[in-house]
Amino acid sequence: MGEFELISHYFAAAPCAQGGEGVALGIGDDCALLDLPAGEQLAISTDTLVAGVHFPAVCDPLLLGQRALAVAVSDLAAMGATAIGFTLALTLPDVGRDWLAGFADGLGRMARRCAISLIGGDTTRGPLSITVTVFGRVPAGQALRRSGARSGDLLCVGGPLGNAAGALPLVLGEREAPGELAAPLLEHYWAPLPQLRLGAQLRGRATAALDISDGLLADCGHIAKASGVALQVNLAQVPVSAALQAFLGREAALHAALTGGDDYVLAFTAPAAALSGLAETVHVIGRVCEGQGVTLLDAQGQDITPQQRGYQHFRETP
Amino acid sequence: MGEFELISHYFAAAPCAQGGEGVALGIGDDCALLDLPAGEQLAISTDTLVAGVHFPAVCDPLLLGQRALAVAVSDLAAMGATAIGFTLALTLPDVGRDWLAGFADGLGRMARRCAISLIGGDTTRGPLSITVTVFGRVPAGQALRRSGARSGDLLCVGGPLGNAAGALPLVLGEREAPGELAAPLLEHYWAPLPQLRLGAQLRGRATAALDISDGLLADCGHIAKASGVALQVNLAQVPVSAALQAFLGREAALHAALTGGDDYVLAFTAPAAALSGLAETVHVIGRVCEGQGVTLLDAQGQDITPQQRGYQHFRETP
Repeated sequence: MGEFELISHYFAAAPCAQGGEGVALGIGDDCALLDLPAGEQLAISTDTLVAGVHFPAVCDPLLLGQRALAVAVSDLAAMGATAIGFTLALTLPDVGRDWLAGFADGLGRMARRCAISLIGGDTTRGPLSITVTVFGRVPAGQALRRSGARSGDLLCVGGPLGNAAGALPLVLGEREAPGELAAPLLEHYWAPLPQLRLGAQLRGRATAALDISDGLLADCGHIAKASGVALQVNLAQVPVSAALQAFLGREAALHAALTGGDDYVLAFTAPAAALSGLAETVHVIGRVCEGQGVTLLDAQGQDITPQQRGYQHFRETP
Repeated sequence: MGEFELISHYFAAAPCAQGGEGVALGIGDDCALLDLPAGEQLAISTDTLVAGVHFPAVCDPLLLGQRALAVAVSDLAAMGATAIGFTLALTLPDVGRDWLAGFADGLGRMARRCAISLIGGDTTRGPLSITVTVFGRVPAGQALRRSGARSGDLLCVGGPLGNAAGALPLVLGEREAPGELAAPLLEHYWAPLPQLRLGAQLRGRATAALDISDGLLADCGHIAKASGVALQVNLAQVPVSAALQAFLGREAALHAALTGGDDYVLAFTAPAAALSGLAETVHVIGRVCEGQGVTLLDAQGQDITPQQRGYQHFRETP
């Protein structure tokens, strides 16, 4: 087999290469073809992961395949979309059969968990880099935007934050931890499960939503700016996992939850009346007010918004 | 401005970032949103260009921007689709304002020529690499596939071949040529114009189609394999430009046209009766027969199919 036959062999063999609902034509022609039910819009997002920048240059390809797909699908969840398919643009320095088999396996596992199909791609030679473009469908006009938050809404997140940031020193081999602490953190880093079901539940309920990738405070800044409102975050309400707290201690765990990034958990705003019946992992962490920017409050309601340069992302500049 | 504000500044300023027909939501949220008219399917293709592999590491960013979009849009033409939008995943080693301004300008110029809008993207730090994913629409069931060629059809191409391959030594600085020879070749390399109009004309006429990117003989092999037929190419009918022939001589020009790649000209099969009224640049270059593989015939009908290893791509293996 030549290089490209080898690659197509692995990905064609992956279960995720089977066409799913909405996929009229998958891999193998000049384009893939999607069908879209009447009254629905197509949601599209693209994410690139570069070796040595977004993941360690040497890592388990199975884990990498899971993560590369998950971080992209998370954007579909953030819009309230149902996943349909994805394309994979894979740039590889060389073709190792074990690496490809592992990567395709990881990609396939996450594809099954998200009910999404590989519909096309491009393989090129070069420094290791992975670009995944995802496609979903959402009823017309019901996509969750960042721009609809209104004063009086509550601010919520879809689950504990900071696990992926906490896992980073483990991923990089800078620290070690007992297996029962390390496992849930590493799981969140390497296989964050996109909150597709919560996103779908939020259609018609949430006024604004996104998935947390830059860190809670930075991403709250994106909602505040897009909606023309201020967001107040109550530190005491920010959820952190028991594993993260045990690994880092309470203060560092909260720091990771506020600024760490890579959570791929939804953050959203909604009127209080719209929250009944949502997933139990949803936590109210603050509220929407008139004004601009993001304010962090302690348990006494004191403004403890960090001012350091490292937090500049959530201080939006014009 | 920070890194990402700088980048969004350039691409938001580019005319191609304006939403066009079918774009319900462009850059700035977690996903872009597309509308699709009833009875149409969405066509999707993705292409990656890597510095030092697909283009010289040092080159004019304006030309690179044009080329990166053109080679991707060409896949929409090959399916008979109408262009709607594209996403850009741009990985850059550093952020140079002049480079970004030039690249955005080139991207915008090609976007206007193809009537396609930038709808989203991702910018990351790393070795220079560009992944463009394009979206088009095509009436349901009318997309041009590779698999419909039938014995008795004629084999056609949308214009002269080999110009981009002929330009390569000029691009790489290995040769020089007088301006009047070099200009049309370089234009074809850096700004190949996707044959969207011809592709649309071919809906309901062509039985199979693709855009020539791997070289005529290799790509004819793809049609032959997908359709389960044999293709005969008549060397004397293969069109080459006057500029290419003057630059390389007749024999080398034909060699470039047969195997050079990067043409982004359509190749298609159709019954003779379906060819009337097509663009004047269309040339009949052979025919479809029972059997398999691609055969090259000289003016006397002798089989002169090249057997060298360099041509292996059009010798399909099971």
